[in-house]
Amino acid sequence: MLLKTHHCGTLTKANVGETVILNGWVQRRRDFGGILFVDLRDRSGLVQIVFNPEVSSEALEIADRARNEYVLAVRGKVIERSEETINPNLPTGEIEVTITEIEIMNAAKNPPFFIEDGIEIDESLRLKYRYLDLRRPEMQRTLMLRSKAAKVFRDYLDDNGFIEVETPILTKSTPEGARDYLVPSRVHPGEFFALPQSPQIFKQLLMVGGMERYYQIARCFRDEDLRADRQPEFTQVDIETSFLSQDQLLDLMEKLVVRLFKETANTDIPTPFQRISYADAMGKYGSDKPDLRFGLELKDVSDLVANSGVQVFANVVKNGGQVKALNAKGCAAWSRKEIDDLGVFAARYGAKGLAWIVYKDGELKGPIVKFFSEQELEAVKARLEAEEGDLLLFSADNKKVVADVLGNLRLKVGRQLGLIDDSQFKFAWVVDFPLLSYDAEEKRYVAEHHPFTRPKEEDVHFFDTDPGQIRAQAYDLVLNGYEVGGGSMRIYQRDVQEKMFGALGFSKEEANEKFGFLLEAFEYGTPPHGGIAFGFDRLVMLITGRTNLRETIAFPKTASATDLLTDAPGAVDSKQLEQLSIRLALKQPSSK
Amino acid sequence: MLLKTHHCGTLTKANVGETVILNGWVQRRRDFGGILFVDLRDRSGLVQIVFNPEVSSEALEIADRARNEYVLAVRGKVIERSEETINPNLPTGEIEVTITEIEIMNAAKNPPFFIEDGIEIDESLRLKYRYLDLRRPEMQRTLMLRSKAAKVFRDYLDDNGFIEVETPILTKSTPEGARDYLVPSRVHPGEFFALPQSPQIFKQLLMVGGMERYYQIARCFRDEDLRADRQPEFTQVDIETSFLSQDQLLDLMEKLVVRLFKETANTDIPTPFQRISYADAMGKYGSDKPDLRFGLELKDVSDLVANSGVQVFANVVKNGGQVKALNAKGCAAWSRKEIDDLGVFAARYGAKGLAWIVYKDGELKGPIVKFFSEQELEAVKARLEAEEGDLLLFSADNKKVVADVLGNLRLKVGRQLGLIDDSQFKFAWVVDFPLLSYDAEEKRYVAEHHPFTRPKEEDVHFFDTDPGQIRAQAYDLVLNGYEVGGGSMRIYQRDVQEKMFGALGFSKEEANEKFGFLLEAFEYGTPPHGGIAFGFDRLVMLITGRTNLRETIAFPKTASATDLLTDAPGAVDSKQLEQLSIRLALKQPSSK
Repeated sequence: MLLKTHHCGTLTKANVGETVILNGWVQRRRDFGGILFVDLRDRSGLVQIVFNPEVSSEALEIADRARNEYVLAVRGKVIERSEETINPNLPTGEIEVTITEIEIMNAAKNPPFFIEDGIEIDESLRLKYRYLDLRRPEMQRTLMLRSKAAKVFRDYLDDNGFIEVETPILTKSTPEGARDYLVPSRVHPGEFFALPQSPQIFKQLLMVGGMERYYQIARCFRDEDLRADRQPEFTQVDIETSFLSQDQLLDLMEKLVVRLFKETANTDIPTPFQRISYADAMGKYGSDKPDLRFGLELKDVSDLVANSGVQVFANVVKNGGQVKALNAKGCAAWSRKEIDDLGVFAARYGAKGLAWIVYKDGELKGPIVKFFSEQELEAVKARLEAEEGDLLLFSADNKKVVADVLGNLRLKVGRQLGLIDDSQFKFAWVVDFPLLSYDAEEKRYVAEHHPFTRPKEEDVHFFDTDPGQIRAQAYDLVLNGYEVGGGSMRIYQRDVQEKMFGALGFSKEEANEKFGFLLEAFEYGTPPHGGIAFGFDRLVMLITGRTNLRETIAFPKTASATDLLTDAPGAVDSKQLEQLSIRLALKQPSSK
Repeated sequence: MLLKTHHCGTLTKANVGETVILNGWVQRRRDFGGILFVDLRDRSGLVQIVFNPEVSSEALEIADRARNEYVLAVRGKVIERSEETINPNLPTGEIEVTITEIEIMNAAKNPPFFIEDGIEIDESLRLKYRYLDLRRPEMQRTLMLRSKAAKVFRDYLDDNGFIEVETPILTKSTPEGARDYLVPSRVHPGEFFALPQSPQIFKQLLMVGGMERYYQIARCFRDEDLRADRQPEFTQVDIETSFLSQDQLLDLMEKLVVRLFKETANTDIPTPFQRISYADAMGKYGSDKPDLRFGLELKDVSDLVANSGVQVFANVVKNGGQVKALNAKGCAAWSRKEIDDLGVFAARYGAKGLAWIVYKDGELKGPIVKFFSEQELEAVKARLEAEEGDLLLFSADNKKVVADVLGNLRLKVGRQLGLIDDSQFKFAWVVDFPLLSYDAEEKRYVAEHHPFTRPKEEDVHFFDTDPGQIRAQAYDLVLNGYEVGGGSMRIYQRDVQEKMFGALGFSKEEANEKFGFLLEAFEYGTPPHGGIAFGFDRLVMLITGRTNLRETIAFPKTASATDLLTDAPGAVDSKQLEQLSIRLALKQPSSK
């Protein structure tokens, strides 16, 4: 067997004169005047190999049987190409290899799609033949970058005293584990393991266990109805630390992110990252993961329109809602159709209507203008910094709907106006998330993050007066409108924990039932601790400029949680089920 | 909050005069003449901190409330200890820290066992309070070494062009997946995922996909009745390569092992590793994972005793069995009781009896000696290189029983004679495993490794004549009597694959049913490939000199596959089961 001495894509003029052995796949072949030219591909790239009857008619004869995706082993001599045949688009374009000996290592059927970048075919075909899809250079580059990114994470964390610890995949189902994947136990009939939604409990136990700095690139599982950007199993870089302040932790993580982007994207990310409070993010951008690559900030005009003749505005404000507006700079010339389309778009996010005003020919115009007084119009104009040519878009509703509507309009308008620089990586920490939110249905406060999230020191007193006011020591890392990480400092003091449970309406018994062994652990000398988890799949997606998580995963699942390659999930033997002491309880024949 | 500037265990005379802040746990406290001495512990080790009323009576008063495992934050000055109080057993023993300020970060209940090395308590208590067990220095050292070992693996593989790729945990149940953990699908009622017993199929698909060099430190799952050294989830370093010969691959892996042991155990492992055929390993050591730290090789004496008067020997040989012997050097003086104990031990491995001869006072003695002729005795003596003072042990049975009996006796005698150097790491490759073995029950050949294992070129012709003779391109890495890795070159040629299926008695339809998508993948240009998997838990166990895999895993499961800390597995809501379209089918009330 001829085994490679060199990689195809790495040969250059420096190798001229050398005899090399190459192994790879036939990318394409073309006959030219009795000479056969083959582009041979391996992981490193392409090189042109040449079968010339004057060099070896035997080799040519064998090579002539090879079709696309055949696996070849060849021995030959690297020679310089003549001036006019140099291919400047190929790293190996200045040379070619004249083959003296060839072995067909394997044949190949004709693949169902071309093995090259930029193919436009149904994704399901790519997933079914993933092993062919993975041969395409862009998939190989992505997986190589993913591997590199993991290494940068690990190297940095190792350099900074973190210990990689593996936590169990077969764990206990959590009290609110509605989205847990369950695993029946054969040894303990009727009992189940659960796959972890995150290693949260274990990483906190490792801090109780004195590990001080832990990390793991951890597989996590969530059995939820899938959206385009979710996978039933996903990877997070899971981190927990003891004896650090929130500022120290965020600083350590910023340096990690800087190193990651330097080494994978060759980009210098400026530090410190902007820190923006949850309240500001929602207020200015209508989102807790704002895209900060452009402005177009939202403005609250509730006070200015509360008494206006626009009845819907006045009513909304009277009933505790908001009126906010977005100044779509320079969009006054948009057609009625274009503005109507914005209204349709806004309706998707719950808008009952989309009011608008244009600043055209020196004055404000539009259906609602006549209901404003002159002073009101001036005040709105001033607050929105409206200028000739601007389009002003208004949303009036409760806080949440207004944020959703204008936040998404802002992204749409920003994109349409070309304000978004796709080459830029714009990071920010969103901080000071609310600790609790009031659940009107359950008539009690619920934890926004989880019940072990530490409140801000200065807000602890609100437990007794207005728990909804308490801000958490919780933080998300956002990048270009995506959440790429999130975490919190954890409660470690018993009295604070009791206040928290009190606010959640848990009795001591309930708390023990839900979190028993963790609460017991906390009684044996728990250090102050806190952590973060980075969404690894999403970071790789953003670094590689992809728009779909599936492009970053070697063997992903579809939106309906199936693996088209192996056809998982699938039926199993009734004997297997019997051993697990379960049986099927199908309401109706399987929908598949 | 006082946050650490230094780690407890790192302070030395070089820090004398510095003011430091330390965070850690109270290891122990003692009062001496009104001064309180506390050993403060963090991950790095211990340091003595001193509360002197003349320095700060306030600090002393607070410190006096602290008990073992309280979490303290202290500020103080590093001072040199007086000559007579230096503790040479402690890295920080030349200094102490005089505390001026203290904060009790957290209190602790009295732990159920001492937080120190070498405690002798019931393991189940340690597992229930794993978070306290993990504070013990030996557990912290083990987990740190485990983290380091993972890093060495990754660095080496990265340096050698390997790409880390994550493969799915939610996969398809394999045809013979009797030991698969199953996961019911909510989205596809009646269907199941399986947790992978290894990433075997995916790593071969990655080779078809042109990744060329893949690795992953992969979690694997096997739902089997547990032995002391198995875990339901375990970790393997999973590796696959294309375009390498077996020799090239083993060489690359030897260098990896050398680097691993250099960087984790500071040991130079000589290369090349001994390579021993399966036949030789079984013949000389009665094991396919021989402990090569000592000799005591087994000798076949079948030919010498076939016609002797020892009826059982003669009969065994006549019926196709073997008579083999072990020379227990210098054990002639063992008492009758000691020799009888060996017989009891041998019976555990299937021996029906244990014949023996001693060489004492210049002659061979023992119950069976009288049944041999003088020439036979001389021949046996010569083959076993028996000398004055030796004890010769004989086993007569079929090949498998003889190997088991004498292989285990060899280990026992070697251990008793002190022939085993526990500080030595003795590696070898066991190669040339049989490809197939005949299953008398199923009346057909079955794959020893798996149906994609490549036969040795020169043995392929045996497919037509005597498939049992075919040796595989399969190899195990053994260390001190443990299998620490194993793998094979894989079949990539269609005609060889068809011969293999033929030998296994599969029709084309059966083959497709069992391995459909993998066989289809193999038709699209499969490169020659092969790989290996290292047992990571076991390697860490051997490097750290532990004897139990649980000591190397942060949160292990017991021999009955339960997690004593979280009490997993556990019961789940009937509502959850309903959503998964399954119900319990308990034969009788749960045995738990």
